[in-house]
Amino acid sequence: MDSISQNTPSNHVDTARLGDRLMGMAQIGATPNGGVNRQALSAEDAAARLKMMEWAAVYGFSVTTDEIGNLYVRRVGTDPNAAPIMTGSHLDSQPTGGKFDGAYGVVGGFEALAAIHESGIQTKRPIEVVAWTNEEGSRFQPGCAGSAIFSGKDRIEDHLDIKDWDGVTVREALKAIFATAPDMPYRAAGGTVDGYIEAHIEQGPVLEAEAKTIGVVTGIQGATRFVVEIVGEEAHAGTAPLKLRKDALKSACTIVGALEELMADPTDTVRFTVGRFDVMPGSPNTVPGRVQFTIDFRHPDMDTLKRLGTAIQPTCEANARGCHVSVTQIVDNAPVAFADSVMDIIRAESDTLSLPNRDIASGAGHDAWYMTDLCPTGMIFVPCKGGVSHNEAESATPEDLAAGIRVLANSLTLLANR
Amino acid sequence: MDSISQNTPSNHVDTARLGDRLMGMAQIGATPNGGVNRQALSAEDAAARLKMMEWAAVYGFSVTTDEIGNLYVRRVGTDPNAAPIMTGSHLDSQPTGGKFDGAYGVVGGFEALAAIHESGIQTKRPIEVVAWTNEEGSRFQPGCAGSAIFSGKDRIEDHLDIKDWDGVTVREALKAIFATAPDMPYRAAGGTVDGYIEAHIEQGPVLEAEAKTIGVVTGIQGATRFVVEIVGEEAHAGTAPLKLRKDALKSACTIVGALEELMADPTDTVRFTVGRFDVMPGSPNTVPGRVQFTIDFRHPDMDTLKRLGTAIQPTCEANARGCHVSVTQIVDNAPVAFADSVMDIIRAESDTLSLPNRDIASGAGHDAWYMTDLCPTGMIFVPCKGGVSHNEAESATPEDLAAGIRVLANSLTLLANR
Repeated sequence: MDSISQNTPSNHVDTARLGDRLMGMAQIGATPNGGVNRQALSAEDAAARLKMMEWAAVYGFSVTTDEIGNLYVRRVGTDPNAAPIMTGSHLDSQPTGGKFDGAYGVVGGFEALAAIHESGIQTKRPIEVVAWTNEEGSRFQPGCAGSAIFSGKDRIEDHLDIKDWDGVTVREALKAIFATAPDMPYRAAGGTVDGYIEAHIEQGPVLEAEAKTIGVVTGIQGATRFVVEIVGEEAHAGTAPLKLRKDALKSACTIVGALEELMADPTDTVRFTVGRFDVMPGSPNTVPGRVQFTIDFRHPDMDTLKRLGTAIQPTCEANARGCHVSVTQIVDNAPVAFADSVMDIIRAESDTLSLPNRDIASGAGHDAWYMTDLCPTGMIFVPCKGGVSHNEAESATPEDLAAGIRVLANSLTLLANR
Repeated sequence: MDSISQNTPSNHVDTARLGDRLMGMAQIGATPNGGVNRQALSAEDAAARLKMMEWAAVYGFSVTTDEIGNLYVRRVGTDPNAAPIMTGSHLDSQPTGGKFDGAYGVVGGFEALAAIHESGIQTKRPIEVVAWTNEEGSRFQPGCAGSAIFSGKDRIEDHLDIKDWDGVTVREALKAIFATAPDMPYRAAGGTVDGYIEAHIEQGPVLEAEAKTIGVVTGIQGATRFVVEIVGEEAHAGTAPLKLRKDALKSACTIVGALEELMADPTDTVRFTVGRFDVMPGSPNTVPGRVQFTIDFRHPDMDTLKRLGTAIQPTCEANARGCHVSVTQIVDNAPVAFADSVMDIIRAESDTLSLPNRDIASGAGHDAWYMTDLCPTGMIFVPCKGGVSHNEAESATPEDLAAGIRVLANSLTLLANR
């Protein structure tokens, strides 16, 4: 694919159609502030999957699902024995999420597949667009459930009994979502894959600031997650003397402050977030007896990740103020590097299309993290406005979004003919 | 009532019956840990009211309700023009509350009324047992809604549109609870009252520690409540540099620490509690964009209450760390003193019954606070185990509970014949 001709897939990527489909998908779970709330395996997630199925039917692409609800849209290859090339991302969102995080990789992956189809090219390998189940981990923790199970890193059994805030299990939610498409053929998660590319908005400010359209992603920083539980003693706010209290909330606030000191980093490389923070019983005139909060801690360097991660528990204990503290690590993702072979293709195709590009590391975790175990893997980033993501204000231009999918379509075609 | 004879009401207070009724009431909204969750105007609250109606019917006491759902059980007096003497408390509980906070004053008040009835005494004034609506303020804020409206301090209009966590308004919840007893006669809240005594567990450790059965309550400390809202900016936990974040949770933790310093008190008289603390959007990998928390601050001294209360907003603002902070005061209850005339009767009746007693100030707020505006008011405290309250482990002995009601029955009879 040295020159751009009529049968070059990128030539068939339709900026308006891609934009329309992304905006159509964003209607499902749309929030009043222009964002999206589409929780994993919810009714909104089901509606998003049905939309994918509608689109696939127009092109004659087959659609299947597996035991964790991953959705696969497949265009056949000429070699019936060849392992597929995959692209995709996720359709679930943060509770106050944006239109592009995840949806871009799935809807854009579908646009790439449509463009390849319309170019008339028959690839040797099949190409699949996958919507991974529960990447965000906001309804059911941990996230990346679909890709983790597909990769073999997680077992389905360890996810099925996880409950959401209302006590609904993954098992029950899966049953409900399967019921919305009872005739969909089933396949098992996993198997041989020959390559994976995920398109995503950067979720950071670098590409926009440097006026680069394409980020050739070099890898993903290490990501860990912990749940801290602090148990004190409920008491009456009007009567219990402060010196006798075991106040789980005040203890938790002190602990968060101590963790901030632990994580202090003049280079501003550490990413330390307390995102979920539940206080029980949550009554204004009762001293809180229990607090549970999450720690999301990431760093590109494995040693720093270990050193600071190990210090979390003693730091919590040293600041417990008479309460009982327990710390449980629920995610431990090492930093990964993407395959040179895939990065080379993405870089070359960007250059061919005259798209300004640069190598860039991913601060966020992605389903691609799990795919590195299975096959040569890469990611394509496009700029997002102000680097804002996990936010209803998430924004990206139709032109940048289409440019990323042009690179994706050509790169997938090259991989599928290897 | 100088001697204890067969027609002395205290002689008819039945320890076992009172205990049975308290345990029966505690079944309604019972929690797995032995506590009670009976939210104001909930289905459990409705069931508790129906139980009161059943009991009242046996004695021929009339039952009425008013526009805020206060429930009145009335025994007539001989003078049709005489203003009533009232006793009572509340049937709603904390989310993880105990069996006695509130329920003791209502069920015990009913036991006192039954004992007076069984003594054969016809009082001049009617005596009413009232269950005030929404004292706790945990489902709908602020609390003491029933007594505040009865006293004329609050207007019903200011309560009807208050919403619970699910968006249900007081108006809707009232409609639902009225529908469970559609034939109950209606009366207007308020009117002339000649005296009010509320029986309650102490909710503090003093009586138990000093082996006193009866606390003659001298008044209630001043109580204020504030809502603090901190608005930052949602961002992706993996990508957003810490220096660029406006993290509402970290700001809130710093603010709580600064408020702890502000409220520091070597005499341990200040009561400062952050009981409700909501973090939004509450996803582990999103930097929180908004935190809302409550401050419950009490002190017996009016000047200290004003001085520290006024310092809350500047303290919050000085520790906002780039977020926007707003502080709203939603409760401002000055300290009150109870009527000497009522305290004298309670003290004398305790002595007559040879019950060890002492004067004691109330750390907790009660519906009695509002009644001081209308009539001579007092309270009777009985010990609770370890001073524990607003807690599922709340406990009191049947003997102490009955002793309090003996004093109550005799005191009400004296007031009703004045």
